[in-house]
Amino acid sequence: MDQKERVLVNEEVVAKSKQWPNFIRAKLGFRNHWYPVLFSDEVKEGEPVKTTLCGENLLVNRVDGKVFAIKDRCLHRGVELSKKLECYTKDTITCWYHAWTYQWKDGLLCDIMTDPGSKMIGKHSLKTYQVQEAKGLLFIFLGDIEPTPLIDDVPPGFLDEGRAIRGMRREVASNWRVAAENGFDSTHVFIHKDSKLIKGNETVLPLGFAPPVDGEEGALWEVVNNESGPKGVYDNIGQHAVPVMEGKIHGETVLRPVIGGNKRIAQQISIWMPGVLKVDPFPDPTLIQFEWYVPKDENTHWYIQTLGREVANAAEEEQFDKEFHGKWKDLGLHGFNDDDIWAREAMEKFYKDDWGWIKEQLFESDGNIVAWRKLASEVNRGIQTLDNL
Amino acid sequence: MDQKERVLVNEEVVAKSKQWPNFIRAKLGFRNHWYPVLFSDEVKEGEPVKTTLCGENLLVNRVDGKVFAIKDRCLHRGVELSKKLECYTKDTITCWYHAWTYQWKDGLLCDIMTDPGSKMIGKHSLKTYQVQEAKGLLFIFLGDIEPTPLIDDVPPGFLDEGRAIRGMRREVASNWRVAAENGFDSTHVFIHKDSKLIKGNETVLPLGFAPPVDGEEGALWEVVNNESGPKGVYDNIGQHAVPVMEGKIHGETVLRPVIGGNKRIAQQISIWMPGVLKVDPFPDPTLIQFEWYVPKDENTHWYIQTLGREVANAAEEEQFDKEFHGKWKDLGLHGFNDDDIWAREAMEKFYKDDWGWIKEQLFESDGNIVAWRKLASEVNRGIQTLDNL
Amino acid sequence: MDQKERVLVNEEVVAKSKQWPNFIRAKLGFRNHWYPVLFSDEVKEGEPVKTTLCGENLLVNRVDGKVFAIKDRCLHRGVELSKKLECYTKDTITCWYHAWTYQWKDGLLCDIMTDPGSKMIGKHSLKTYQVQEAKGLLFIFLGDIEPTPLIDDVPPGFLDEGRAIRGMRREVASNWRVAAENGFDSTHVFIHKDSKLIKGNETVLPLGFAPPVDGEEGALWEVVNNESGPKGVYDNIGQHAVPVMEGKIHGETVLRPVIGGNKRIAQQISIWMPGVLKVDPFPDPTLIQFEWYVPKDENTHWYIQTLGREVANAAEEEQFDKEFHGKWKDLGLHGFNDDDIWAREAMEKFYKDDWGWIKEQLFESDGNIVAWRKLASEVNRGIQTLDNL
Repeated sequence: MDQKERVLVNEEVVAKSKQWPNFIRAKLGFRNHWYPVLFSDEVKEGEPVKTTLCGENLLVNRVDGKVFAIKDRCLHRGVELSKKLECYTKDTITCWYHAWTYQWKDGLLCDIMTDPGSKMIGKHSLKTYQVQEAKGLLFIFLGDIEPTPLIDDVPPGFLDEGRAIRGMRREVASNWRVAAENGFDSTHVFIHKDSKLIKGNETVLPLGFAPPVDGEEGALWEVVNNESGPKGVYDNIGQHAVPVMEGKIHGETVLRPVIGGNKRIAQQISIWMPGVLKVDPFPDPTLIQFEWYVPKDENTHWYIQTLGREVANAAEEEQFDKEFHGKWKDLGLHGFNDDDIWAREAMEKFYKDDWGWIKEQLFESDGNIVAWRKLASEVNRGIQTLDNL
Repeated sequence: MDQKERVLVNEEVVAKSKQWPNFIRAKLGFRNHWYPVLFSDEVKEGEPVKTTLCGENLLVNRVDGKVFAIKDRCLHRGVELSKKLECYTKDTITCWYHAWTYQWKDGLLCDIMTDPGSKMIGKHSLKTYQVQEAKGLLFIFLGDIEPTPLIDDVPPGFLDEGRAIRGMRREVASNWRVAAENGFDSTHVFIHKDSKLIKGNETVLPLGFAPPVDGEEGALWEVVNNESGPKGVYDNIGQHAVPVMEGKIHGETVLRPVIGGNKRIAQQISIWMPGVLKVDPFPDPTLIQFEWYVPKDENTHWYIQTLGREVANAAEEEQFDKEFHGKWKDLGLHGFNDDDIWAREAMEKFYKDDWGWIKEQLFESDGNIVAWRKLASEVNRGIQTLDNL
Repeated sequence: MDQKERVLVNEEVVAKSKQWPNFIRAKLGFRNHWYPVLFSDEVKEGEPVKTTLCGENLLVNRVDGKVFAIKDRCLHRGVELSKKLECYTKDTITCWYHAWTYQWKDGLLCDIMTDPGSKMIGKHSLKTYQVQEAKGLLFIFLGDIEPTPLIDDVPPGFLDEGRAIRGMRREVASNWRVAAENGFDSTHVFIHKDSKLIKGNETVLPLGFAPPVDGEEGALWEVVNNESGPKGVYDNIGQHAVPVMEGKIHGETVLRPVIGGNKRIAQQISIWMPGVLKVDPFPDPTLIQFEWYVPKDENTHWYIQTLGREVANAAEEEQFDKEFHGKWKDLGLHGFNDDDIWAREAMEKFYKDDWGWIKEQLFESDGNIVAWRKLASEVNRGIQTLDNL
């Protein structure tokens, strides 16, 4: 019974944030960045797939091998085209309601079958967005400007030749920012202390990290903000801080990490615009984990988990593929990251009404998160707002 | 955790609408009009029935054959009388909580059984609304004024002597306006192209209509706005526009209508205040469909579907009754209109926050809908608001 | 998609209430009062229990026999500690996310296992609340001031030596004020006319009460508002009004109460801050019912029902315990009060948006309720607001 001005973010909260106002505003993510939304093999020739990115409902289709994304809302009466898919030619989609027909490639209203002489024809277009395929992922540029190079929106090394990528996608019930911070958070290792990955693998994770004494804190993270190329933050806590191997309360040791072996993992962790993590190596010395926290809407994100390995030839890639499906998907992407998922969902409540960004009390180890928020607040190419929906 | 000023309609949107501001405001429908809410046989002597009209909860009862409608909310502490029906005399209803007792005929608080000497007795009344039975339907006048003649709020011909009416009622999850426009929409025939009615009947529907060239557009609809009598709009597209029998994209024919036979139906379509459609003839040359889109609340409407046939005597009415239940209910009211129901529900989302009325892009064939909106915005006898609830 | 200023109570409604503005504001109950939230036996040594009081999420634990209550929200990133309980020493709880560790007794952040050298340690504290055990109940003081004596927040006699108490707890879907008024309401006896307690017990309840003629109304209730000690209202309608034994409509008797016997019950009914009822005797001449309507959140309350009996020794208490579990729990606390529960839930809708407090129409028998509202509006020690959450 309530119909008022729509508001996405509480501006009273934004006003209290001196350091990262636009990060708080970015509840629906960023415009003019490349986000992976689906895997390539999820979109087959002539079989449109419905998805949502940054709150916008999209239809994605493959036509003669090339993938296109259009807004899933007819210009005429606003219905979702996906409610009943009607494609009478391979390069068009027709609205089920009044037969307004749009071209996949540019969204042009090329015909209206119910009124073939309408003057609207050829004069209006559905919003379309650029799609780019790389490493088996479909990236969409929710853009108002000319698409920027994809390489500027992925972590260094992801697009390298010879790096094979495999992965999986799921929907998680938290805002994307809560998810990104969970991933980049140095001391969240504590939640993984009983992880199947650690127990079932020849590795170990400390309980936490003791940062160095005063004066050296700056070394704990490093911001990358070059004019071109990806922008991000390196977390150096692994190199500069002392791993905590004994959990103490009142001076007594109450907890020690599980030690599965001495393989060194997660040596270098970095986060990149528009919200993608690189953990190198992970979950094994031969692998790098790249994972995206893609805004679906204000309350949920697509968690796109990928592992990359350098391969010299097709046989090695085939071997990696087998290993991914036979071992790492279960042991790493589930066995380790399932804990991250419930942690994000548990954190969502506090930040949902925006006040969490003010009420929280960060500590020394959160310095890299602070650096990330400032960077994201400053270098994004645009913030998704309700007006775009 | 949110308690603010209640608002039904976004006045920022209303302000942007020069042509039909009050139509946008009428989210809960109109006051001082007759709406059918139930069929006569749904309300039996002494068995009160709970319903909702324009957001107001009502109790409808039959006392000595006459039907009364009272507000389903005790004056005292606001509980619904229907939560536990207690009627100790045939002409009264007693609240289950503190035994405040009201007369069906006028809502008068005639007794309080828990405190027989209260000074409130005889001085307060529940809101009551006039009820009129016609053609097997119960019409309610949600009024603040003297009831107007019923004949002014039904389509021409509906009350004619010799016209037998049969029908059914269901609840649909869209606002009533979205439903009314779906019904009156000339080019929505496109959604019925695979309809059971067309395939299973000796008839045909075109894919759409090509309106005539410039200068003749006025002929496509005709507004009826006499001082007394029903007010409405005739859609003349069937007569003046060219039926589209070939669906073309890029000049190629991709679709043709199913042709079941050559019976001519839906020759004349008209919509009438406060929101009732007449399709003449339909779904057969011997029948007229009259259907109401009655506001239940802001998100749902009662879809009251009726068919009328001229009958000369009781035997012919009996024959019609058999045909209605044996054939037309399934073939027409379900076989054809079930598609309209999901179309309305699919359209609801876009208009729910009012912005759809601004963001939509109407085309030439929507001229009759525009005429209807303007009429409804101007000639209604009052708009239902939250203050009335 | 809606993120605006959070508002608990509509101040437009509060402004219209001259007599009890703070009662309307107290949607989440009062601060600085003792509320029972759990029974003693629900909190076992070292087994923290999650609960909610006045909208605040709490964790309650017993350490070396003493019970403590802490806020169930980590200072760091706001997650609920209860999401995954980790207690490594008996006097602390550790957050599952980053191992921030708090002392039960005072909430002090005594250690952070992931970063043992953090400067936050020892400088911050979780909010804690005082807990007191009495008569098998755990009372919590949601306080900002030094706790006041418990005896000031319970009905007279409840804490008496020699009075054994037994009871049960349930969650009910109405605001606590709607519940308190249902309990203290003189004429709500009408809903109990078919109660199992009356039929199955040797007692009777009238259908209502006829208050005395003008000039004596003041005698119907008595406000207790001494400087110290409990503050409350006695309902004297039982003594001063004439019990209604015939329900009449239009002068005809249509209803009489069920008469199970002549045991006199409910002779004296009183309500006390912060929202607890005493019915003496009830449901039997040997028993007193004390029941609390404890705000859980704005839409629900904990209904804490207890019966008290004077006992001379352990054997008599044992006998009472058997009788409570074998008879009164079913016959009284369920058989009688289950009707109150659905009545409260039925009343909730009208008051949910605050307007019910203005739109209601009280009658003569509601005088005691009016006295209670005024008292509660004036003598509370603080109102719970969203800022406290």
